Amino acid sequence: MRSEFKFIENIKKKYSLDYIGDDCAVLPKDDRVDSLFTSDMLIEDIDFRIEWTTPEFLGHKALSVSISDIAAMGGEAKFALLSIGVSENLWKTDFVDRFYEGWHKLAEQYDVELIGGDVSRSPDRLVIDSTVLGEVPKGKAILRSGARPDDAIFVTGYLGGAAAGLNLLEKGETPAEDLTEAVRHLILRQLQPIPQARTGKALYEIHLPTAMLDISDGLSSDLNHLAIASRVGAKIYADRIPVDPAIAGAGSLTSDALDLALNGGEDFELLFTTGPEKISAALDLGFHHIGEITEQIGIIELVRDNAVSRLEPKGYRHF
Amino acid sequence: MRSEFKFIENIKKKYSLDYIGDDCAVLPKDDRVDSLFTSDMLIEDIDFRIEWTTPEFLGHKALSVSISDIAAMGGEAKFALLSIGVSENLWKTDFVDRFYEGWHKLAEQYDVELIGGDVSRSPDRLVIDSTVLGEVPKGKAILRSGARPDDAIFVTGYLGGAAAGLNLLEKGETPAEDLTEAVRHLILRQLQPIPQARTGKALYEIHLPTAMLDISDGLSSDLNHLAIASRVGAKIYADRIPVDPAIAGAGSLTSDALDLALNGGEDFELLFTTGPEKISAALDLGFHHIGEITEQIGIIELVRDNAVSRLEPKGYRHF
Repeated sequence: MRSEFKFIENIKKKYSLDYIGDDCAVLPKDDRVDSLFTSDMLIEDIDFRIEWTTPEFLGHKALSVSISDIAAMGGEAKFALLSIGVSENLWKTDFVDRFYEGWHKLAEQYDVELIGGDVSRSPDRLVIDSTVLGEVPKGKAILRSGARPDDAIFVTGYLGGAAAGLNLLEKGETPAEDLTEAVRHLILRQLQPIPQARTGKALYEIHLPTAMLDISDGLSSDLNHLAIASRVGAKIYADRIPVDPAIAGAGSLTSDALDLALNGGEDFELLFTTGPEKISAALDLGFHHIGEITEQIGIIELVRDNAVSRLEPKGYRHF
Repeated sequence: MRSEFKFIENIKKKYSLDYIGDDCAVLPKDDRVDSLFTSDMLIEDIDFRIEWTTPEFLGHKALSVSISDIAAMGGEAKFALLSIGVSENLWKTDFVDRFYEGWHKLAEQYDVELIGGDVSRSPDRLVIDSTVLGEVPKGKAILRSGARPDDAIFVTGYLGGAAAGLNLLEKGETPAEDLTEAVRHLILRQLQPIPQARTGKALYEIHLPTAMLDISDGLSSDLNHLAIASRVGAKIYADRIPVDPAIAGAGSLTSDALDLALNGGEDFELLFTTGPEKISAALDLGFHHIGEITEQIGIIELVRDNAVSRLEPKGYRHF
């Protein structure tokens, strides 16, 4: 079965859609500024389970994933349109009010204003579509396609935590109060992800990244997206992957920690490349240097215990 | 149970959302132009039935409803983001390709370019969220709130056809080839609505409308929206409502023709008001003069056989 990535690639070619292919579409706004646009759809029982989260967390996450896309371009989120499809049963409760409260709490933090959207009835499952508009100085959006051979590859924070949190939720943990610190941290990584908006902007301001995207599908897949867009390859080192330390503290999970860090999605950390001369600057800022860009287009290699193997994109796919 | 209109009114107040309340949000773009933004969610078995339509019609309609919102502000649609949630079964067929073909055929006619969106998996039902960006000369967007007492009320075309088409589909008619002209016309009004984009732009250019919106929920409801936004009332005349003449030709339907024209939604004609001195200009252009604006805030009156009654908003509501 074709993947959604292949499908999007096909319609992009078929209809000559030049704006599609990055975390956001970039359109000229005025003489100084470009506009950024991103949409993310979340569907109950596919992208979230209502019984595993709270309305506030879900509202938070619906906005967070889109702010993250704007951050991945070095931009700033400004406005949002939010469409929801709600069942009659859920409509009768305070769910939607609490959902908007969670949404607005995050929106206030990042100065995002709701300007529109739609409220529809759904026969059963909750559906959310979030569109966020951002801005970036003219011509300065950081694309996926700017990585060059010998660039260093960095990630901004720990990986695997959100996927470990999902594991825990699948095993019956809930975001209750009496959790250990590690378990609570991992569950919140999954349910209430923090967009790296300030980091993305700071990276833009110091001109570090040559290419950037957010880690939403999983490192193996998102690095693959970056490599394909930049027409390069990549080599990363297992012992440099910043595996979320809480995973070790959370007891037995269904996957091992490195696998979660490589293939688990939704950490919403940023993955970026930078020129080799800027490695020490990036390290000084606390970012994690995980490998380097190579010339072999689309080939991602993983070095582990001195052996090199191909890293296939095993991150999240809808199809 | 609170309606979605009440809910939107509440969150608008609670979070001081100034941009919400018209067919589109209006944001400044540059010195000459304002940007328009609109989102519309369509959910299977609520907003459409897959077995009653074709993938191409559905793609057409998903875009059409949003272009209509832009037209209702006197603007021009430019770019779109399209999010779809698709079941695995549907994904395996050519449905999504044909859906995008229908979408693009209309997009080409109106010069709209797809710049983004999302493709998600859905457990069963198809979900579509369409966001369209448009432009209008600075400060010139036509709002719902500009109607004044004694303004004349106009609609741009026939009403009730789309609702009659829905009646026919509910009775088992399909968009096949061997239909009478009237039945075919009504079914296409429902399945393949034509946005009044050129009319909206022409109305803007000759400065006719003081207020405008598109008739999506139904005349009784949409006139109510306009009256509330403008803090006025309205009086309309039953014998002047341009009932779609095809309804009479289509045989027995579950509702009478005037009721369909007053309360049936989705005709996507434009409803506008204009100063009394411009009535003859609007009539010359073929628009239908159905009544006038009054001072009684929120009161819509229907004059029928010389008797005046209150016209309650009985158009489409999700909740």
